[in-house]
Amino acid sequence: MDSLALGDIANLVGGALHGDATIPITGAAIIRDANPGDITLADDPRLAKDLADCKASAVLVPPTVELADVPTVSVEDVHVSFSKLVEHFKPRAANAACGVSAAAHVSKTAKLGAQVVVYPTATIGDDVVIGTGSVIHPGVHILAGCRLGENVTVFPNAVLYEATHIGNRVLIHGGAVIGAFGFGYDTVDGKHILSAQLGNVVIEDDVEIGANTTIDRGTYGPTTIGRGTKIDDQVMIAHNCRIGCHNLLCSQVGIAGSCTTGDYVVLAGGVGLRDHIKIDDGAILGAKSGVMHDIPAGTTYLGYPATPEREQMVKQAAWAKLPEMRKQFRALQKQVAQLAERLGDAA
Amino acid sequence: MDSLALGDIANLVGGALHGDATIPITGAAIIRDANPGDITLADDPRLAKDLADCKASAVLVPPTVELADVPTVSVEDVHVSFSKLVEHFKPRAANAACGVSAAAHVSKTAKLGAQVVVYPTATIGDDVVIGTGSVIHPGVHILAGCRLGENVTVFPNAVLYEATHIGNRVLIHGGAVIGAFGFGYDTVDGKHILSAQLGNVVIEDDVEIGANTTIDRGTYGPTTIGRGTKIDDQVMIAHNCRIGCHNLLCSQVGIAGSCTTGDYVVLAGGVGLRDHIKIDDGAILGAKSGVMHDIPAGTTYLGYPATPEREQMVKQAAWAKLPEMRKQFRALQKQVAQLAERLGDAA
Amino acid sequence: MDSLALGDIANLVGGALHGDATIPITGAAIIRDANPGDITLADDPRLAKDLADCKASAVLVPPTVELADVPTVSVEDVHVSFSKLVEHFKPRAANAACGVSAAAHVSKTAKLGAQVVVYPTATIGDDVVIGTGSVIHPGVHILAGCRLGENVTVFPNAVLYEATHIGNRVLIHGGAVIGAFGFGYDTVDGKHILSAQLGNVVIEDDVEIGANTTIDRGTYGPTTIGRGTKIDDQVMIAHNCRIGCHNLLCSQVGIAGSCTTGDYVVLAGGVGLRDHIKIDDGAILGAKSGVMHDIPAGTTYLGYPATPEREQMVKQAAWAKLPEMRKQFRALQKQVAQLAERLGDAA
Repeated sequence: MDSLALGDIANLVGGALHGDATIPITGAAIIRDANPGDITLADDPRLAKDLADCKASAVLVPPTVELADVPTVSVEDVHVSFSKLVEHFKPRAANAACGVSAAAHVSKTAKLGAQVVVYPTATIGDDVVIGTGSVIHPGVHILAGCRLGENVTVFPNAVLYEATHIGNRVLIHGGAVIGAFGFGYDTVDGKHILSAQLGNVVIEDDVEIGANTTIDRGTYGPTTIGRGTKIDDQVMIAHNCRIGCHNLLCSQVGIAGSCTTGDYVVLAGGVGLRDHIKIDDGAILGAKSGVMHDIPAGTTYLGYPATPEREQMVKQAAWAKLPEMRKQFRALQKQVAQLAERLGDAA
Repeated sequence: MDSLALGDIANLVGGALHGDATIPITGAAIIRDANPGDITLADDPRLAKDLADCKASAVLVPPTVELADVPTVSVEDVHVSFSKLVEHFKPRAANAACGVSAAAHVSKTAKLGAQVVVYPTATIGDDVVIGTGSVIHPGVHILAGCRLGENVTVFPNAVLYEATHIGNRVLIHGGAVIGAFGFGYDTVDGKHILSAQLGNVVIEDDVEIGANTTIDRGTYGPTTIGRGTKIDDQVMIAHNCRIGCHNLLCSQVGIAGSCTTGDYVVLAGGVGLRDHIKIDDGAILGAKSGVMHDIPAGTTYLGYPATPEREQMVKQAAWAKLPEMRKQFRALQKQVAQLAERLGDAA
Repeated sequence: MDSLALGDIANLVGGALHGDATIPITGAAIIRDANPGDITLADDPRLAKDLADCKASAVLVPPTVELADVPTVSVEDVHVSFSKLVEHFKPRAANAACGVSAAAHVSKTAKLGAQVVVYPTATIGDDVVIGTGSVIHPGVHILAGCRLGENVTVFPNAVLYEATHIGNRVLIHGGAVIGAFGFGYDTVDGKHILSAQLGNVVIEDDVEIGANTTIDRGTYGPTTIGRGTKIDDQVMIAHNCRIGCHNLLCSQVGIAGSCTTGDYVVLAGGVGLRDHIKIDDGAILGAKSGVMHDIPAGTTYLGYPATPEREQMVKQAAWAKLPEMRKQFRALQKQVAQLAERLGDAA
């Protein structure tokens, strides 16, 4: 919270100062929010225009950005340095560490590693295993037989159904539900009968799962999320899916049952996949696409039904000009009719 | 629950009676649900047709609606009056007030105003401030450093991450998650590295937030929701967004990172916004639109990609007639070929 | 977990063995996941191709499937039998039963039937009634005046707002929010004023509700879900809707206010319905459809706006060929212009 001279700021982040070292800096804020006294961040030369209207007293820049009219501090990794400054002026709020709270409900048969934190109102079921350094926030419920690795963080009110397996360094955000029943039914005598729910969910190392996302358990085997894959808020992954490694699944993506994705797949916001299809390595699906077929590796698809990006662009363009083409078409019909008439006369 | 004579009903709501004051009324229900003994509601003359099949014993109407064959009570504000009657016959269920429950977990450093209610199993983190008259339902978790204004209601199992700021008279429904991490990554050596999560969420006065909605925290500064804006269930608002005042964001809307909306913007159900775009004052987006560009003030856009309503209508109409046009086009091709042949003969 | 000889497997499921009865079986897994020692499942002759690459030691098949090169056990209902085997080798994790936990918060005026289980941190409000054999998981909050039938299961962190009525044998998954406020506003002097919230939600027998689904309460009367209807994760059902019996509502479906569905309606993933429309008995809506009008009984509709399946297919096909048609159209324009010129010359 303390004010710092700009020279001290440069020292703090190990940067090169251009300008008056005595300018007092009282905060750090992005260009949109910066007031006099703040240092701001410009990570791209194209931001020069926005900086013209910005009231910040100084700017943190990478060596590639040079600014004439304003004091700057220049560093290699502007984001790491700017984070330091933001934290200096606005220290992070955090609860005092609590170990395993007496107000948490931990089964006697659960095994918790060293430095595990369990907040009040969390419940840990029978035979659960939680690795060293993991943090279980309030209102989290980890049902019987779950296994969590080391340094996992489960944020408030997330739920892990029975036998969910979680790797190391996984983040699960608030309200996420992992392992609920798959939506599979047989219709017998007019009634929908739920399929078996004997599988589980397996989440590998370094996966991050957004708030209120749902991942359903497999029918007989696991639904799996591969190492390093990041999943945004309100994503739905149905039973028996196999999500590859290092995928990016953006908000409100919906993946129906038994789909497979390769590695480094990107599904933009609101993409929907029908059941039993495969998205191969490195494929990218544009926002709100509806995918009805397998998608080859390394391609970009868009639209509903999803087609290759270039094809979709041509179709969109043709569609945009369709009303004009209709008019021209009617004119052409008339012209041909007149020609036919004249030709009849001429014949 | 008591039966009332229709004359007493008229007195209760201060309305004008047309019909027999002694008719006993035992309930209040909408036209679809009304049984004999009920009074129902007709707020529009066009409902006369529906009333013909309705078994209600009387109808509450505004002065603009006249009904010949059924007893009526006529009042200016039918909805306020009908609410009174519904509550008379079916008093609202409510828990006895409990003050701050001994079964809630409130940090010693939290500051709670007068008449604050905190239900069992809610947790209130370090340095949290909650204003007079606010109600914190069971299973709500308010992490360290949050600030809530006066007369805020947070319904069961909503989560406020660290340093969330909430104005006065805000409603937050069950399962909403405010302040989870933004979905921003840099890919370094094939691994996705999470961006800084040093910002927070700021929600102004009179905002209402639906069940299971998610609003992510800003990277360095706040994600903001302007005064009087109403947000439905399962809406997703990503990091760094600036939502204006008095917006209506319907269910399943998804707004990607760093978007801005003006005042009185309306996003219908399922609308998706790409990142870094601006929706100007009073703009309306039709249901399920996919918005890829800035939208000007006061306009209505539809479709994917979203285009002006009128243009979209023309394109939809042209699309609907496209198969017919294809047939006509093939016929025209043939006709022209024949003309060309005959002209060749004629020449 | 114990190993079983294949002959014992056949006895366990009452099936006919083809092959060596002494083969030791150590697990049961689907084709994708099976390793040597496992028995797998092939419920369809078309799976023969997948089995060629499968390492399983034996296959469970229905009488209609004959396999030459691998030991099989043949039974009528393969799914029931395979479930038995999966459970034999991997017994389900489950918490020890706990009755009504002393760490649950149950109102003195609530009435709980025999064999009701309430886990720690669940809260049960005033005047709630819960039928025999129902299970209330941790973190579930059942507000005042709710009524639940027999053998209902409410999974962790689901929320039932005041006066929700639930039938028998209903499953409600984690994070579902039932009875939050409807999104109805009148705009008065530039402010959005919330409509009455005096109704409730009524859920009939044998309904299943997915994780993080939201169903809003009616304005004056109930929002209803008919008997036997199954609802997937992250579905949104708005205020005053009347959902019929035995519907299947897939993930991320959004239904706006006051809609009605008949019986045996199927809404595929991501379908959106505008407000006040009716989907009649047995109608099917394709994935991601946007529905703007009533849909007749027994029909299948697709697309945005939704049109009959056949019509949509023709339109999609026409659209796919639109760029080609544009080229041909320009060619035809030229040809007609040349004809006109020649005809002018000829005349």
